[in-house]
Amino acid sequence: MADDSIAFDLLATIDTPVRSFRAGEVIFNEGDPARESYVIQRGQVEIRRNGRLLDTLPEKSIFGEMALIDHAPRAATAIAATDVVLVPVAEKQFLFLVSQTPYFALNVMRVLARRLRSANGAT
Amino acid sequence: MADDSIAFDLLATIDTPVRSFRAGEVIFNEGDPARESYVIQRGQVEIRRNGRLLDTLPEKSIFGEMALIDHAPRAATAIAATDVVLVPVAEKQFLFLVSQTPYFALNVMRVLARRLRSANGAT
Repeated sequence: MADDSIAFDLLATIDTPVRSFRAGEVIFNEGDPARESYVIQRGQVEIRRNGRLLDTLPEKSIFGEMALIDHAPRAATAIAATDVVLVPVAEKQFLFLVSQTPYFALNVMRVLARRLRSANGAT
Repeated sequence: MADDSIAFDLLATIDTPVRSFRAGEVIFNEGDPARESYVIQRGQVEIRRNGRLLDTLPEKSIFGEMALIDHAPRAATAIAATDVVLVPVAEKQFLFLVSQTPYFALNVMRVLARRLRSANGAT
């Protein structure tokens, strides 16, 4: 299981209604247009590509952030592994967090670097 | 060829001697401990893993930044594809750039996201 915890407290500053999914529900599909990222407030989320499990993300993980960075469609499918509650982070909020809090930016970079090493088969 | 150009002007603020390599010389090897990243001032750099060419980076590209983000050994080997001149960016300078210039942070994220999509075989 990944350890992608980010500065979760930052998200208390975001005044957005949370979004709930039942275990098994699809949050987004590979190829979907992307307008927001998510932080997991409760539960676990599976990231799959062509059906293959890439990662299982615990509470406080961020996901879906790649689409905000490069504006490409979703590179993978996200499915609720348990009942989950998500905090949506819109692009504007994401850019605000990056610009105001270097710690947040570094954490997002760490998440990307970890996934990249994993994708390349590095230790 | 990649388009990883970052805010190159920022690096004018870094007072570090440049480093030169001849075509074919190894800049760093996979598994090496890592203390700095580089921006290409002149020339091209090949990124290889187990001998396989992952990327050819043009002038103004940043590379070697993953090790500064997650402090793990080099995930790939970097070789001078032509005669090259590099601007070394130490961890302290990297963190300064990230914290002072959100544009730099977003560019590094874009580089990582692009490499991740490429590693995952996404378009």
